[in-house]
Amino acid sequence: MRLALGISYNGQAYDGWQSQPSGRTVQDHLESALARFAARPVNTICAGRTDAGVHGLMQVVHFDTEVQRAEFSWVRGTNTFLPPDIAVQWARPVPDAFHSRASAKARRYAYVLLESPVRPSVEAGRTGWVFRPLDLEAMQEAAAHLVGEHDFTSFRASACQAKSPVKTLQPVKISRNGPYWRFEFEANAFLHHMIRNLMGCLLVVGQGLQPPGWMREVLAAKSRDAAAPTFSPDGLYFLGPVYEDHWGLPKEVPAYHWLP
Amino acid sequence: MRLALGISYNGQAYDGWQSQPSGRTVQDHLESALARFAARPVNTICAGRTDAGVHGLMQVVHFDTEVQRAEFSWVRGTNTFLPPDIAVQWARPVPDAFHSRASAKARRYAYVLLESPVRPSVEAGRTGWVFRPLDLEAMQEAAAHLVGEHDFTSFRASACQAKSPVKTLQPVKISRNGPYWRFEFEANAFLHHMIRNLMGCLLVVGQGLQPPGWMREVLAAKSRDAAAPTFSPDGLYFLGPVYEDHWGLPKEVPAYHWLP
Repeated sequence: MRLALGISYNGQAYDGWQSQPSGRTVQDHLESALARFAARPVNTICAGRTDAGVHGLMQVVHFDTEVQRAEFSWVRGTNTFLPPDIAVQWARPVPDAFHSRASAKARRYAYVLLESPVRPSVEAGRTGWVFRPLDLEAMQEAAAHLVGEHDFTSFRASACQAKSPVKTLQPVKISRNGPYWRFEFEANAFLHHMIRNLMGCLLVVGQGLQPPGWMREVLAAKSRDAAAPTFSPDGLYFLGPVYEDHWGLPKEVPAYHWLP
Repeated sequence: MRLALGISYNGQAYDGWQSQPSGRTVQDHLESALARFAARPVNTICAGRTDAGVHGLMQVVHFDTEVQRAEFSWVRGTNTFLPPDIAVQWARPVPDAFHSRASAKARRYAYVLLESPVRPSVEAGRTGWVFRPLDLEAMQEAAAHLVGEHDFTSFRASACQAKSPVKTLQPVKISRNGPYWRFEFEANAFLHHMIRNLMGCLLVVGQGLQPPGWMREVLAAKSRDAAAPTFSPDGLYFLGPVYEDHWGLPKEVPAYHWLP
């Protein structure tokens, strides 16, 4: 039987999603908790690996198991063995044709940013930070150059394992609430560090250090050297994958309401 | 010269506000950072002491010093020596008649609560949690019994050092955003554990375990035994003291926009 789980976590304490010899990753903790609940080894595949320090509001994994339990038993039982900053949100049986990564037609991320002369404190590790005021219209104009199908090589980490640098980006939604900015990204898939590299460039424009049209030049250069440095992981939240309705998986992301 | 500072902090890692031999309190870290910046000992007095695990969005302290520095130098210099989850937000010279505690005519707190069958994860340590659905109208009716000047002995911790249990509470504002509830409290002053004890009782009513009128009985009993257990500190945020305008202190609480 194939099972899908929705997982949320605060990435501050972890070396990212993917299993490492350190054992200090979200996947390591999840698989260890699932193994204790199921009393046998469990290997999971996720919809989108997150970097060290990046948070997950609704990661989705799948795995195959012969263990028969009620859906909420998987949730509650596994959560008993997880640290307080990681929790399974739901469990659903899925057809064998479902694959958490391959079935995802899109991924959604949010970047939360504090604009203040004073660094973060209450929200340290969970928000990016700029001390210069940002220009919304300039950032919107710059972001518009990125929308659609493009070769995003300029925003791709050297360690990226994606087969193709061509991805399709939806319009970037930028909003603000008091001193906090929120940037929402959706694409069929993202390259390694792509959002943190896009954020670095958007903030160069937002702070008036480059005009909005510079973003088009960076994109056209197809070279990492053309773009701004990779921005901090602190404010990056994986909102989750988007699946076709027929898989019947929950669409709600409860902790989304936690973001300013 | 007397100086007032606005401070914000995440209380998760600390043994509360007030100095302890452990040295692991917010006041200990603040005074140590101020002493390093000013190159001499600094003793602060705060507007409202917070318990272990309680967060401060705009704590206010005052102290006397002969050190002359620009306001923003106090902010930036002190923050250099503070841990990432504590920051000075502003510094202002104040008349000697100003006293962070005695001059405060009111204090404001917010309690943030997750209503979900699944425990917190992304927001662990920064939200309270109930798994049963809450009834807004029942809680509003119960809270209405508390408004005004009352003897709040039933909601007072045995260790409370306040001279009088009589306090004046403003109307409690209850709102919700997705699965998160927010309760806002304002009073001339609060007794030790008063908000966590009020929350315990409001949630008993909100979960339908007692009718709204029970709150009036608890208040009238003037006995801690009549009330519900003290609720978790995790979701409690000190929004800050309220001062008369003539002191000229900042009124904004930037991190307020972080709360759901």
